Amino acid sequence: MFVLSEDRFFDPEPSVRKIAGDIYSSIKYMPIISPHGHVDAKIFAENTPFTNPTELFIIPDHYVFRMLYSQGISLDSLGIQNNDGTKTEKDPRKIWRLFAKNYFLFNGTPSGIWLDYEFNIVFGIKEKLCADNAEKIYDELNEKLKSPEYLPRALYERFNIEILSTTDAASDDLNYHKKIKESGWDGKIIPCFRPDAVTDLSTPDWMKQIELLGNSCGEEITSYKKFISSLKKRREYFKSIGATSTDHGVFSPFTHELTEDEAEKIFKRAMANKITEEDSSLFTAHMLMQMTNMSIEDGLVMQIHSGSYRNHNTKIFEHYGPDKGCDIPYQTDYTFNLKELLNKYGNDPDLTIIVFTLDETTYSRELAPLAGHYPALKLGPAWWFHDSIEGITRFRKNVTETAGFYNTVGFNDDTRAFVSIPARHDVARRVDSNYLAGLVAKHILSLDEALQIAQDLTYNLVKKAYKLL
Amino acid sequence: MFVLSEDRFFDPEPSVRKIAGDIYSSIKYMPIISPHGHVDAKIFAENTPFTNPTELFIIPDHYVFRMLYSQGISLDSLGIQNNDGTKTEKDPRKIWRLFAKNYFLFNGTPSGIWLDYEFNIVFGIKEKLCADNAEKIYDELNEKLKSPEYLPRALYERFNIEILSTTDAASDDLNYHKKIKESGWDGKIIPCFRPDAVTDLSTPDWMKQIELLGNSCGEEITSYKKFISSLKKRREYFKSIGATSTDHGVFSPFTHELTEDEAEKIFKRAMANKITEEDSSLFTAHMLMQMTNMSIEDGLVMQIHSGSYRNHNTKIFEHYGPDKGCDIPYQTDYTFNLKELLNKYGNDPDLTIIVFTLDETTYSRELAPLAGHYPALKLGPAWWFHDSIEGITRFRKNVTETAGFYNTVGFNDDTRAFVSIPARHDVARRVDSNYLAGLVAKHILSLDEALQIAQDLTYNLVKKAYKLL
Amino acid sequence: MFVLSEDRFFDPEPSVRKIAGDIYSSIKYMPIISPHGHVDAKIFAENTPFTNPTELFIIPDHYVFRMLYSQGISLDSLGIQNNDGTKTEKDPRKIWRLFAKNYFLFNGTPSGIWLDYEFNIVFGIKEKLCADNAEKIYDELNEKLKSPEYLPRALYERFNIEILSTTDAASDDLNYHKKIKESGWDGKIIPCFRPDAVTDLSTPDWMKQIELLGNSCGEEITSYKKFISSLKKRREYFKSIGATSTDHGVFSPFTHELTEDEAEKIFKRAMANKITEEDSSLFTAHMLMQMTNMSIEDGLVMQIHSGSYRNHNTKIFEHYGPDKGCDIPYQTDYTFNLKELLNKYGNDPDLTIIVFTLDETTYSRELAPLAGHYPALKLGPAWWFHDSIEGITRFRKNVTETAGFYNTVGFNDDTRAFVSIPARHDVARRVDSNYLAGLVAKHILSLDEALQIAQDLTYNLVKKAYKLL
Repeated sequence: MFVLSEDRFFDPEPSVRKIAGDIYSSIKYMPIISPHGHVDAKIFAENTPFTNPTELFIIPDHYVFRMLYSQGISLDSLGIQNNDGTKTEKDPRKIWRLFAKNYFLFNGTPSGIWLDYEFNIVFGIKEKLCADNAEKIYDELNEKLKSPEYLPRALYERFNIEILSTTDAASDDLNYHKKIKESGWDGKIIPCFRPDAVTDLSTPDWMKQIELLGNSCGEEITSYKKFISSLKKRREYFKSIGATSTDHGVFSPFTHELTEDEAEKIFKRAMANKITEEDSSLFTAHMLMQMTNMSIEDGLVMQIHSGSYRNHNTKIFEHYGPDKGCDIPYQTDYTFNLKELLNKYGNDPDLTIIVFTLDETTYSRELAPLAGHYPALKLGPAWWFHDSIEGITRFRKNVTETAGFYNTVGFNDDTRAFVSIPARHDVARRVDSNYLAGLVAKHILSLDEALQIAQDLTYNLVKKAYKLL
Repeated sequence: MFVLSEDRFFDPEPSVRKIAGDIYSSIKYMPIISPHGHVDAKIFAENTPFTNPTELFIIPDHYVFRMLYSQGISLDSLGIQNNDGTKTEKDPRKIWRLFAKNYFLFNGTPSGIWLDYEFNIVFGIKEKLCADNAEKIYDELNEKLKSPEYLPRALYERFNIEILSTTDAASDDLNYHKKIKESGWDGKIIPCFRPDAVTDLSTPDWMKQIELLGNSCGEEITSYKKFISSLKKRREYFKSIGATSTDHGVFSPFTHELTEDEAEKIFKRAMANKITEEDSSLFTAHMLMQMTNMSIEDGLVMQIHSGSYRNHNTKIFEHYGPDKGCDIPYQTDYTFNLKELLNKYGNDPDLTIIVFTLDETTYSRELAPLAGHYPALKLGPAWWFHDSIEGITRFRKNVTETAGFYNTVGFNDDTRAFVSIPARHDVARRVDSNYLAGLVAKHILSLDEALQIAQDLTYNLVKKAYKLL
Repeated sequence: MFVLSEDRFFDPEPSVRKIAGDIYSSIKYMPIISPHGHVDAKIFAENTPFTNPTELFIIPDHYVFRMLYSQGISLDSLGIQNNDGTKTEKDPRKIWRLFAKNYFLFNGTPSGIWLDYEFNIVFGIKEKLCADNAEKIYDELNEKLKSPEYLPRALYERFNIEILSTTDAASDDLNYHKKIKESGWDGKIIPCFRPDAVTDLSTPDWMKQIELLGNSCGEEITSYKKFISSLKKRREYFKSIGATSTDHGVFSPFTHELTEDEAEKIFKRAMANKITEEDSSLFTAHMLMQMTNMSIEDGLVMQIHSGSYRNHNTKIFEHYGPDKGCDIPYQTDYTFNLKELLNKYGNDPDLTIIVFTLDETTYSRELAPLAGHYPALKLGPAWWFHDSIEGITRFRKNVTETAGFYNTVGFNDDTRAFVSIPARHDVARRVDSNYLAGLVAKHILSLDEALQIAQDLTYNLVKKAYKLL
């Protein structure tokens, strides 16, 4: 029988393992706060069963299919929708068998750990997936998916989620969020304002996005000035639906304020479809300044996710679209890039800017020193590729000594894969517990201090940083 | 009762812990060599009591108040002197209470570890500082500060310091150093020649600094040529007072030799207040070459501390001045930047250049390979933000396999906080002992080899590298 | 008596150590696959005794003499041949004594670990080398070197090497490889095609190299077109002698395709000795594209070794030539540099490109995400300075969670020092076993999974990636 050990991910040294277990026990059942992620609000609004195991676990999860793709398995054979009309595999069982046969590729990876948790703990499957049991497990999962306790809302409750934030375009009508509220269900699904499609002038269909933004405000956006006022209106709307934060997925964290006149000129060039790369980079840098300014006014917490070269594989992007496992991090500077923003706004203790990085070299070199000084700056948890046992451990080891625990903001699952949420929080809680246990065993913290910090990292700091109180 | 464990910071695995303890015991009581730091010689010259706990532990220590500031506590409320005449908190007890209430912020940080040591071991306080005992501990500390055994010289002796180097401007008269010598006290306080204020043309009051330099040599500096000869004179003067080293706190480690004519032209432009950023960068690069050349002549050991973006927070700099916790590291290259210097001087086995970095990525990538080849180059210990349990461990793990132990130079405390010196050396000795114990337990070193290396890292290598024999 | 512990390099925690030992035992006696290295085929063709211990262990090994040089020991005194006719030490015993006296410098380094293995296990020396036993050990080694069981072929067999790849210039006649085949000895020594001397236009004697390439094809190379066709012919020739791979030791991994016309123009400028640095950089970038294209045609596996600043110490290069311990890594980008190549060829699952790096920051940030997506890309093992206990551990910890195990290719010894081969593979097997044991102890892998992965890393993945099946 395949059982997940209660001691998993803890240091094998018995005294550390014991302390880690004690700390973990104290936070294991705390509610999940999910302040940043990409689950679709629709699933809670409609609360209909998930289609089948393949549609739930494989097709929407680029963490999963990128690994299979890297080993020569085509996206078509995995049923990933392409844009060019060539046939992709339609048989969910056939896709599932291919996945099961190659499940060993996930050995030692967070995806493997999360999937094991989902199968074993969420769905009660007591065998490890492999070629031989593929069909059997497919059937078991499929049957359970039809039952009421596997409906989205039931799972939300079972997962003990207290708040879940989605991420939404500036022009989104947030109708699903409204429906959820109106339904009387007391799950707390809140939106997050992410205006990238309109603040990034290089967005392929930028003009269309501007039009959508205009429509969402009931006005035509013909100037930079109107653009700014539309964004303010939308932020107010998002707040009215429960949003407490914004998110900015920028290529680079470069910040720089343009004059109103310069901004207007670039905006006009964009309207005329005549911008340069420099225009685009300057405008994004300027919009980060503007967004911070608006955050000071309206109190929304600001998140900056930068340093990903999106759609690095042009062929895949052209045939299958974005979010297909080919976003690649690159070396990022924060010391110079954030200087203008932090110099203007960073001393404000009422402002909260949460920065995430894919460049781990900046943890100890730039981000911890910055967060250990500027009152407005906090560090988001280990992100994306680094949301893993070693990744979270590196984050704590590199950040804590300079920034302490209280300039960090607890965990983000940042996932599209709803069922992976408890798995991801469980890993984070275990790894943090283990890190704290190491400090206790080395007499750097007392057990009481560690227990308090564990509660703060799991719950209190998240709610405070994201103003979810 | 609050007691620091004798096993603190050692690996919890019993066999490693045992070996670490054995190694540590063999070096625990060795004298402290402090070859680089920022303690004021005045305190030993005057040997008067420290004013009060707040003036001793909080106000002069940017490691401490930057963390409080990062959590929204204003520098004014911490009594940090500002330049604009607004009132800052004057009541040391009120500041102390604020500090004590927020002392938990230092959990898991080296500042917390050092302070615990200072309170517990240096001052015999047997409770951990918190809001509840703030006043009581203030009183205890305050009383002890008035007693003879807490005078600077008494502490110096109790700390078992053998040599302590200060860091001094090129124009400094070193009168306190002379007074100490003349006093008959046998503490060995030596100066270190740090000419940054005059070699960095972008120093805000550079002209004033040049004047001071001229005055210190009894001549007017009107040309680059005179500038160079003044520096040589000052180095001789520093040597006569006991200096064995120079220190260069440069933005970038870029090195490049100008022709005499180019140098003269830039210097003239600087005198006319007409320099460009490029002038300034080139001149610093040139002066590093000149300083190395002088080191070959006069035998002074050269230290290069680069890679810090000083005064990143302009507002804080303008209101409170430099060294206020807002110096932020950035990505630094040594392979290209040091090439010209190492190509000209690096093959000289009688020259010693000690390089420090804030960019830990360069440990294994650039600095260990460079130090593992060039006879003149040695690596300074983990610096500043990285002078910590994890930081020193990373230094050893990343440097040793390529550079060995003998291209490193033991520990530097590099502190303004005199009372933290034994605490910092204790952490370094413990972490090195633990690192060595790991190598012994893994059969990479024999215990005898580890014991010898521990002595070398603690004492022999420092004295040799800094020519303190 | 000096005995290497059977537990060496394993985690001291008893449960992890036990598992590590079990995993290691299961792979300890597997044959060595050495798919990339720099051993001279001549030694197997001629199979004559190695001259003496100094000629075997010190003079050809820049890992060894760079460390001695860094401590002020001149290359002349170590018998390193210089170009300028000054006398270098000729007495191998005198050099050996100097080495033995300074052998402690290698404490904690991989060179020290490999040498200990070679002396102890390969040569049966039961004392650790030091000043006192230098002569005695020299005599023991020297005597053994004369005996039949220390001839190159005998050692190859004793080391249980199944395949050994050399690295050879594009114009090499591969006569030694042919002789080995013709000799009837069944050792498998295969060549690898490394055309750097002709693809890098900045090669000092590039024109001479082009001439040699022409001669090797029996035609005069007067144009880019002929250059390309010569390379294709040479690749075919290499294949006919057993080559399965090419190797590209480029300064930067920048890839970019020129038009045929642009390439021809740059080539002509090179023939006229009129190239710029940009020409040279563009041409190398273009040749990487061409080489990939040829690999798709002829099936040769492509290796890219970039990021080393070769011959950083000009004086040493001028007096002693290349490969003298003064190649220094620098910060390298793969996300942008490899984009053009990966976009054009990276989706081909039949192509294999193995990338190596000296910039460990790219493991988790760039290379694991790239290899975890592009079917053609695989990651070479920890290279050069990072082929060490900590280095291999960092590689696994930083790479596995994103790329898994199956986008890596097992171990490369990459050595000129033939006798170090079993030592290097032993370290890699031990470190991988220990890493896997940690995962088992933390319940991330089952023991069965770990045992399978250990076999794959040691043998199966290497043979598959290098098409050695």
